[in-house]
Parts: sequence; structure tokens; C-alpha cells
Amino acid sequence: MSKALKLYYDLLSQPSRALWIFLEKTKIPYERCLVNLGKGEHLTEEFKAINRFQKVPCIADNQIKLAESVAILRYLAREYRVPDHWYPADSRRQARVDEYLEWQHHNTRAMCAVYFQYMWLRPRMFGSKIDPKRAEQYKAQMESCLDFIERELLGGGSSFFAGEEISVADLLAACEIEQPKMAGYDPCEGRPKLAEWMARVRDATNPYYDQAHKFVYKMSQETAAKPKL
Amino acid sequence: MSKALKLYYDLLSQPSRALWIFLEKTKIPYERCLVNLGKGEHLTEEFKAINRFQKVPCIADNQIKLAESVAILRYLAREYRVPDHWYPADSRRQARVDEYLEWQHHNTRAMCAVYFQYMWLRPRMFGSKIDPKRAEQYKAQMESCLDFIERELLGGGSSFFAGEEISVADLLAACEIEQPKMAGYDPCEGRPKLAEWMARVRDATNPYYDQAHKFVYKMSQETAAKPKL
Repeated sequence: MSKALKLYYDLLSQPSRALWIFLEKTKIPYERCLVNLGKGEHLTEEFKAINRFQKVPCIADNQIKLAESVAILRYLAREYRVPDHWYPADSRRQARVDEYLEWQHHNTRAMCAVYFQYMWLRPRMFGSKIDPKRAEQYKAQMESCLDFIERELLGGGSSFFAGEEISVADLLAACEIEQPKMAGYDPCEGRPKLAEWMARVRDATNPYYDQAHKFVYKMSQETAAKPKL
Repeated sequence: MSKALKLYYDLLSQPSRALWIFLEKTKIPYERCLVNLGKGEHLTEEFKAINRFQKVPCIADNQIKLAESVAILRYLAREYRVPDHWYPADSRRQARVDEYLEWQHHNTRAMCAVYFQYMWLRPRMFGSKIDPKRAEQYKAQMESCLDFIERELLGGGSSFFAGEEISVADLLAACEIEQPKMAGYDPCEGRPKLAEWMARVRDATNPYYDQAHKFVYKMSQETAAKPKL
């Protein structure tokens, strides 16, 4: 098989990691195309020709250029032979996976990313100061979302969001929930179901999960080692 | 056919209108279950048992309760016999529809709703004052999104987002873009392609489009009739 499929990504981006892990784990042949967000490579005219939305991740595959991680995961599950559990053909289970994939945009994705950006990324990139009131507000929003996952999405006793096997919904979620660790926040503390589920997602996708999160783990350790203000 | 399918909705909600129009147009038998957002009916324990996310729209159908409009549209297109153009079976066209459905969460949906809520809903519900600077910021974000749709999504000369026939992406988008009209903003002004496309979506889904937007049209006229500050 030729590597017609190209993945444009940066492992600092949560959905880029999810796609990278998915491609590695399912053994879909693809070409790695690094796009360094820190250097602003996604803002060049060259990259705009690949993705008009000027974001990562995105793919190019034969005659299609596709953005949006959820749309890409659906496309890959449809076009390539991947085990059914990733995106179930069963209509009701697929609907349950879809429900999470849509819900997460304004919840897991938005809340964890906003907290991470405000507490970790912006101070490092722009030297911006942290307003404790605002930090508390972002933290509370993120915690409300994580508590909902603990209570509602993992409260039923299933191993994963949509049953006993991992789906793209779990993978996308776990990659988002790793992000605030870099800012010194432990999402698993006080959430035993979330902690066990995170471990299951990692187990189900290793060694690729750990490889994709190498930088995240390193930054998390560095932040944890610093004295708290 | 029995009406096993129940739609929980409020026509003030943009994705509720999209689902309502879709169900009417495709003649899927369903039961209308009004949930009055203004009266807080979505916050009751009774409704929580139907939708743990406590939002509209949602559906109940045989053994599934499903939230998130995009997940619901995919489920309905899969479970019921609807014309292919709504959600194309062709993988590349489906991917293009999916790409919009995912992108819109943080763009069309977020930008048009934030402007509408800040300029129209919050002053009426909570008596909140409008800060001109913030209003300008929300307007600029919304306009940047609408310009992107004009230039990138409708710039290629197609009648609809993913070809020559209407899909769920167009319907969901149009219902979002109607919303700021209530706050006195005309999204079609200076955007000829958007104006023509909006007219095409309306034509393709009438008389249901007009029926669903009755309140929106009425409020838009009232706002337009008021002297500008």
C-alpha cells in the first residue's frame, strides 16, 4: 500500500495526538507531516493551500483534503479496515459515540483547553499575567465538566463511554484531559472512575499513547516539581 | 407506522428548528414534545430523566435517548429512509458535510449565538446592559465567521455547502444564521452569495422553514422597526 494518506499534526495539539495514536494503533499506512504550531507554520500560505481552516490536525488522502478531527476519525473508520469497536457500525452504539463527539466541543475540549491556555500556554508565549479570579472561574468550569464525565459518562459501570471496548470518543476525550496536567492540574484526583478509565485508554493504545504524550508528561513533571505559588 | 420517535424542542433554539424542519420535510413520523426554555422546563428533574445534558433538542426513539443535534441528524438519516442528499452515502461528500458539522460548533453556532444572547436575549431576560466595546467584539467575531462562509464555503460556486443539493449542514447553518436577525443584524448585507444560499435553503425546505422561523421573523421585524440608538 502506498502512503497516499498524509497527517498534518503537532503533538502539542490534543486532537492531533488522538489522530496520531489512532493511525499508529490501527496500522493505517500514512505519512507524518509535522506542522510546528510554535513556529506558526499553520499560518503560512503554503499550509493554507492544504487546510483553509489553518489548523491541525488535518489530512490529505487521494482527492480529499479534510479538516476537523471528528470528521477525519469518521472518514478513516469508513475508508480503512479498522476494528469495529473504534466507531461501531451498530446504530445505537454509533449514536452514543457520536453524542459524545458532538458534546465534547463545548465541554471537554473547550474547558480543558481554555484552562491550559490561560494557565500554561499564554504566560509562556505572551508573558501574560494570571488573574486568580479568572483562573478560578476557568478551573470551576473544567471541574464541572470532569465531574459530569465521572458521574454521567462513567457512572453506569461500563469500561468505556460506549460499552466494554474503546472507541474514538474515549481516545479523543483522554487526549483532551491530559492537557491540563501540564498546568499542574490532576484531573484524576478525587475522580476514581475517571482515573481508572484514563488508565484503560492508555493500556488499550500503548505504546503509542505514551509516545504521543512524551512532551505532555515532561511538562507535567516540570510543573509539578516547581514550588506552588 | 407508530410515532415511537419523540422530538423535544423549543423553536427559539436554532438546532431545534433545524431538527423540526428536517423531520417535517422528510415526513418522518414523530411526536412533538415542546420544552419551554423561557419557563426553564429543560431544568426540571422530569426532563433530566429524558436528557442528562438538560438541553434541547433531544430525541427518544424506541430504546435510545439521544442528545446533540448533529448526532441526532446522523442517527435519523441512518435509521429512516430519507433522500441521500441530506447526508450523502458517498464517502467524500459525507466527509465534507461532516467537516462543516464539526467546524460549526466553535464558529457559526458559537459566534451567532453569543452575539444574539448578548444583544437580545440577556437584556430581555436579565435586564443586563450592553457594553459597546464588547458588542463590537462579538460582532467582529461573528462577521469574520460569516465572511469565511461567504468566501470559502460558498466561494466555489456550488449551490450548497457540499454540492448541488441541500444537506443537513446547510440546514443547521441557516438556522444559526437566522438568529442574529432578531438582534437587528442582517447577515446577508454585503454577502451576496450567503444571501442567495439562504434563499435556496429556505426554498428547499418551505413551508416548514417559514413555519419554524415565525417567531424569529416577528422579533426581527420588531427590532428593525425600533429607532436605532
